[in-house]
Amino acid sequence: MGKIILKNITLDDKPSDIRIEGGVIASIRPHEGSLPAPDGHDVVDCAGKVAVPGFVNAHTHAAMSLLRGIGEDMVLQDWLDHIWAIESHLDEHFVYHGTKVAALEMAKTGTTTFNDMYWLSPMARKAAEETGIGCLVSYALLDNFNPETAERQKDSCMAMFDTVGTWDSRSKFAVSIHSVYTVSESLILWAAEFARKKGLRIHVHIAETEKEVIDCKASHGGLTPVEYLDSLGVLGPDVIAAHTLWLSDNDVRILGERGVNCVHNINSNLKLASGYKFLWKELSDAGANVCLGTDGCASSNNLDMLEAMKTCAITQKAWRNDPTALPLDSLLEMATVNGGKALGLKTGRIEEGWDADIQIVDTDSTFFLSPGPFLANYIYSAHSDSVVSLIAGGEFVMRDRKVPGEEDILRAGREELRLIERYR
Amino acid sequence: MGKIILKNITLDDKPSDIRIEGGVIASIRPHEGSLPAPDGHDVVDCAGKVAVPGFVNAHTHAAMSLLRGIGEDMVLQDWLDHIWAIESHLDEHFVYHGTKVAALEMAKTGTTTFNDMYWLSPMARKAAEETGIGCLVSYALLDNFNPETAERQKDSCMAMFDTVGTWDSRSKFAVSIHSVYTVSESLILWAAEFARKKGLRIHVHIAETEKEVIDCKASHGGLTPVEYLDSLGVLGPDVIAAHTLWLSDNDVRILGERGVNCVHNINSNLKLASGYKFLWKELSDAGANVCLGTDGCASSNNLDMLEAMKTCAITQKAWRNDPTALPLDSLLEMATVNGGKALGLKTGRIEEGWDADIQIVDTDSTFFLSPGPFLANYIYSAHSDSVVSLIAGGEFVMRDRKVPGEEDILRAGREELRLIERYR
Repeated sequence: MGKIILKNITLDDKPSDIRIEGGVIASIRPHEGSLPAPDGHDVVDCAGKVAVPGFVNAHTHAAMSLLRGIGEDMVLQDWLDHIWAIESHLDEHFVYHGTKVAALEMAKTGTTTFNDMYWLSPMARKAAEETGIGCLVSYALLDNFNPETAERQKDSCMAMFDTVGTWDSRSKFAVSIHSVYTVSESLILWAAEFARKKGLRIHVHIAETEKEVIDCKASHGGLTPVEYLDSLGVLGPDVIAAHTLWLSDNDVRILGERGVNCVHNINSNLKLASGYKFLWKELSDAGANVCLGTDGCASSNNLDMLEAMKTCAITQKAWRNDPTALPLDSLLEMATVNGGKALGLKTGRIEEGWDADIQIVDTDSTFFLSPGPFLANYIYSAHSDSVVSLIAGGEFVMRDRKVPGEEDILRAGREELRLIERYR
Repeated sequence: MGKIILKNITLDDKPSDIRIEGGVIASIRPHEGSLPAPDGHDVVDCAGKVAVPGFVNAHTHAAMSLLRGIGEDMVLQDWLDHIWAIESHLDEHFVYHGTKVAALEMAKTGTTTFNDMYWLSPMARKAAEETGIGCLVSYALLDNFNPETAERQKDSCMAMFDTVGTWDSRSKFAVSIHSVYTVSESLILWAAEFARKKGLRIHVHIAETEKEVIDCKASHGGLTPVEYLDSLGVLGPDVIAAHTLWLSDNDVRILGERGVNCVHNINSNLKLASGYKFLWKELSDAGANVCLGTDGCASSNNLDMLEAMKTCAITQKAWRNDPTALPLDSLLEMATVNGGKALGLKTGRIEEGWDADIQIVDTDSTFFLSPGPFLANYIYSAHSDSVVSLIAGGEFVMRDRKVPGEEDILRAGREELRLIERYR
């Protein structure tokens, strides 16, 4: 693994030298001019640049990068028809090339780790590993209440686990329960038991829409999705719950007490008109771990965490009618270290002993010409192309805005798009 | 003036050649391969690139680019204290260099025209003209109900008009009435009469906050800001009204009947917690001309119209609980041709005889790798750095991401920042 020194980089407003070895941050020292570098290190002059922890995209469907923009300005059912017409023909090539495109986009926008829910996940893992982006990929259980499908998916999930195990420290395997409206109770129970026996995370959509809550109450004796999953013993600190948007006070209490990881996906929620009153403060205060994600490109159109951060914060200020809501430090934690905690990874802080997942941000533009703090300029003013280089797992995945092989990734992605055109 | 041919550029999904001469679009033809170019033209190969009308930022305070990020996560009064502490020392250097920085940022993000409300506007005009960006700048009337201030500002406004006149076709002069809560009735009446006598636009903040409406009703016998200004005869198609966020049904009817230009500033409204339920559809249906702006950088943190477009559309979908709300074509019109109409300029369409204000967009990135339409990819997925070159008033203001003199503009802006530091 690479040995890198980021020389004279600004970290917490101080000029610093960051030494990276074996995938982790080996040491951080105040920058002291032109000291000789240790042998064998790639010494990178970062004068005028700022170090920021790599983003953790805590909920996405990466391969759907190839389905972005497919059903614009449509109501949900028309949109789903467009998506499903293509997904019914989905194969390993689609997942591999789609995730390659997604990983390229993440590299270009400062994301070093993502939590994926999609099909044929070994192909997603391969794509992420080749690019150098860390990931939690999963077997996605979705039986539509069909017992035969459930049995087939259990076998298939166990077989995938036996083949791939828990994988390595930067590419982990999880079990996804799609949602309470698509997965039978017996399969939910099996999934939770299997995941806990094997020490895997559980990834699940919860309370994304008001309709989901209304329907769940009607089907499960008045229980909300949170209450229903809690009654099955599913909820705990190993659960990553996407959306958690339509919550009662009791739901917030339960998610907090169980220490669930709750992932907000603001751009998707706004664009699909799912809602926007995410209770980050109430959930945090109750004890939940609040994270940020982009959702898949078919709903949010890109994988840009910086854009998601700005929209998240200003929407919170607006609906709470409070311009002090969601301050910058909390926002950065949602997008970095909280996501790392959700995935069980030591990522999201630039400190000795933590994974070397680092954005190198160029501040030489109008967006940073300001008397305000760096974080305000980065999140509210600049765009993700300010990330000039990105280190993930101790290696450069982007350097001077170039990702190795990016032309080939785009070419293969375009070819995949031509193939799926016939299914529209 | 330059003669330019944009060769093989995609316009409305068709490969086209666009010829520009004398600041206007002289002709548009289907691209027919390698025909010889007329003498004296700058022929630019635009294969794989897309032509989009330059954005019109219909409400901003450009020089406040130097105040971005100055009062983050604060309540309004604390924020104003921060701003005013500096603005009380404002001089021509500040306005000139601040507007230079703003114009550079506009050039980099696809904006070819802006509507400004700030002090010492001849300096703002100079900065915009040097960069090549079109503008409507104004004398800003704000007497705080002090008759002496009112008299001084009238004289000063008339003197500025006599010196500069209406200026040329791409840099116009207007009269600003800051708001009903900062300008006396007699000064409002004078401003409207003066503007109409001279054929100038009237630029005014209306109904930005709920408090403004409540206070106006209390001071003016129950009249809303819209009703009050209408009772004074101010409202008409020559009025550019910023915000118009807190409107009654009767307000919407009045703004529609008078054909007022209403400018939405979504990022500022969200971030300052002013509100977000902008009635673009109701206003349009009533007959108003609905436009888009960024507001100043102190509130919205940047001048990026593409970002504003996305936030605008997804917020409309969310609060209306309707994913079909504000379709892409209407959104593009708000950000281009409607703004041009508001300012009285023939900009915002790529058609023969219209001003040559054109974005050249590079689609060679993951953001455009999609089965969806170009506009969806550009607005919802990509960022403004996709604008590779920009033509404003028939001349390149940015070419291959380079704006002439940008290093000097940033350097001078940083120097100005150092000077204002002592007033914080």
